[in-house]
Amino acid sequence: MSSFFSEKYKALTPYTPGEQPQERKYNKLNTNESPFPPSPYAQRLARQAAGDLQLYSDPEVRGLVEIACEKFGLEKEEILFTNGSDEILNFAFMAFCDENHPAAFADVTYGFYTVFAQVNNVPYVQIPLKDDFSIDVNDYIGIHKTIFIANPNAPTGIALSKEDIVKIVESNPNNVVVIDEAYVDFGGESCLDLIHSYKNLLVTQTFSKSRSMAGARLGFGAACKELIADLNTIKYSTNPYNINRMTMAAGIGALGDEEYFKNNCQAIIENRKYTEEELKKLGFEMTDSKTNFVFAKTAKMGGQDLYLALKERGILVRHFETERLKDYNRITIGSMEQMQELIDVLKELLK
Amino acid sequence: MSSFFSEKYKALTPYTPGEQPQERKYNKLNTNESPFPPSPYAQRLARQAAGDLQLYSDPEVRGLVEIACEKFGLEKEEILFTNGSDEILNFAFMAFCDENHPAAFADVTYGFYTVFAQVNNVPYVQIPLKDDFSIDVNDYIGIHKTIFIANPNAPTGIALSKEDIVKIVESNPNNVVVIDEAYVDFGGESCLDLIHSYKNLLVTQTFSKSRSMAGARLGFGAACKELIADLNTIKYSTNPYNINRMTMAAGIGALGDEEYFKNNCQAIIENRKYTEEELKKLGFEMTDSKTNFVFAKTAKMGGQDLYLALKERGILVRHFETERLKDYNRITIGSMEQMQELIDVLKELLK
Repeated sequence: MSSFFSEKYKALTPYTPGEQPQERKYNKLNTNESPFPPSPYAQRLARQAAGDLQLYSDPEVRGLVEIACEKFGLEKEEILFTNGSDEILNFAFMAFCDENHPAAFADVTYGFYTVFAQVNNVPYVQIPLKDDFSIDVNDYIGIHKTIFIANPNAPTGIALSKEDIVKIVESNPNNVVVIDEAYVDFGGESCLDLIHSYKNLLVTQTFSKSRSMAGARLGFGAACKELIADLNTIKYSTNPYNINRMTMAAGIGALGDEEYFKNNCQAIIENRKYTEEELKKLGFEMTDSKTNFVFAKTAKMGGQDLYLALKERGILVRHFETERLKDYNRITIGSMEQMQELIDVLKELLK
Repeated sequence: MSSFFSEKYKALTPYTPGEQPQERKYNKLNTNESPFPPSPYAQRLARQAAGDLQLYSDPEVRGLVEIACEKFGLEKEEILFTNGSDEILNFAFMAFCDENHPAAFADVTYGFYTVFAQVNNVPYVQIPLKDDFSIDVNDYIGIHKTIFIANPNAPTGIALSKEDIVKIVESNPNNVVVIDEAYVDFGGESCLDLIHSYKNLLVTQTFSKSRSMAGARLGFGAACKELIADLNTIKYSTNPYNINRMTMAAGIGALGDEEYFKNNCQAIIENRKYTEEELKKLGFEMTDSKTNFVFAKTAKMGGQDLYLALKERGILVRHFETERLKDYNRITIGSMEQMQELIDVLKELLK
């Protein structure tokens, strides 16, 4: 830290991204990436865009907004694309949280929420999940706070019903409720259509998981026009050209190839089912995942030990060291080959 | 504005990007883009990267950092890449400005500085340029503020000498001095090598102009390790994966094709010389531009009228409506064909 660093940020603990080791080729089941390349159509459009990079990208991201509105049933003033969904989440913490609107989110959820709250100097409360890692909806009823819910949640994989979300949104009419649907395409129920009914609902999604574009950095938020206008004020005050031309083109391609998208989501759901069944046979306990990962523990080996043993054998999973999570590992659902390798190695390890 | 928008931002006036009209094909001399496509090598690498988008980009941007360090004589802890140089500038306002470290910059300079100050709730002073639009170095000596200087400046195009920058940096040892070198490759003198001598100097550059990558969104900051560590704290608390894989690949290609870069910069300098000579013949007055634009006025027609007359004839230039600038237009230096068309149209208009 330099002597010039503002007092505001001196206590900040930044987010730690998942390991991206370079020294060895791993069976990488640690960062919830898709095992499938982006749609061939998305690739083709991105490649074409590489020839025009001398021109600024469109700050209004028009072509992409158009197809997204068609796909999701939105007006163009109801959506805002960002450089990954981390950016829209940060914008939401900026726009809708302050001393009078503290943030609230689960104690076990996307680890970045606490960082966003801290970097924006926003008070926050962490609401404990129940013992089974599910959310108690009653904890969020009428709490007068800006609420962030990852649905399905991470790293637990558990989804909340749309009905429960509605209860939360309706009972907090003076605060924005943000539903972070990063994993929704693998079995969750999207609240996108609810933005027409609730002025205080912001739904965010990402192209990183189900659309195989983690490396392109594309996310979005959908909400009523007034909320999107506020978020645009933040965008145009920090980085108006936040979406580059290639990512915009790839996004158009990804949304234009619905069949590829659906098939990939289906494949992940099937591979998850296979993995869950095999893990159960090996004595693992798991939460009910609606995502592209499972959250699993076994009495036969501690979470940290299992993580290290797998790593030694060339398989990377994600282990969290906090007390509540330390027995578990979060295992990304990859291709069938990747999952079979995992199961084979586990059979060896735990026999 | 919604009723949920935080008080903090209610008075914010966002940045207005240059016009990007869609309805008609213009000779576009309004946003300082390069007339040349990105290097063929940059394009090739970007296209290759489009196939691997399912994997997250490297938060440490390693391959790009490596070649940049080699090219600019830096250590890897002395550089930070961002989603355009707007992002590094915003990070600098966040990290190094606050109540105790107000920002200071010229009254006529990159219009985003006031927005960055406002969005970060930072007090700032705007120091008037001299009547000839040059900076009076004495205005910046020992002022105990975090200083932002675009060098060369925009929209004036005028450059400050390295000697003058050194005086400013040395006389403000308790504040960071940010030198924004967006346009330096067209005739300015870079201060990049000075970061080894001064702990309070941050130099920012962009790939948008001289490297033909405005649409890829790539910029960077270079400074001593301590300042870069602070800026990384901000990055890892807002958007760790800020550089996508395709942009990173294109950046590697752009830095790897020095000859293409040099030839393009040389061509812009030659086209600028041609444009200046022709504009002078037509009675224009101009500042001494070291950039890829000229800042010009003529007694024969008001700035706004000229802008509108050119637009009607299919040529877009940038006009600023503030009192001090309203007689002028900022005209991007494009290809020789683009500049000849401009001159031909002006000859007609002003005859």
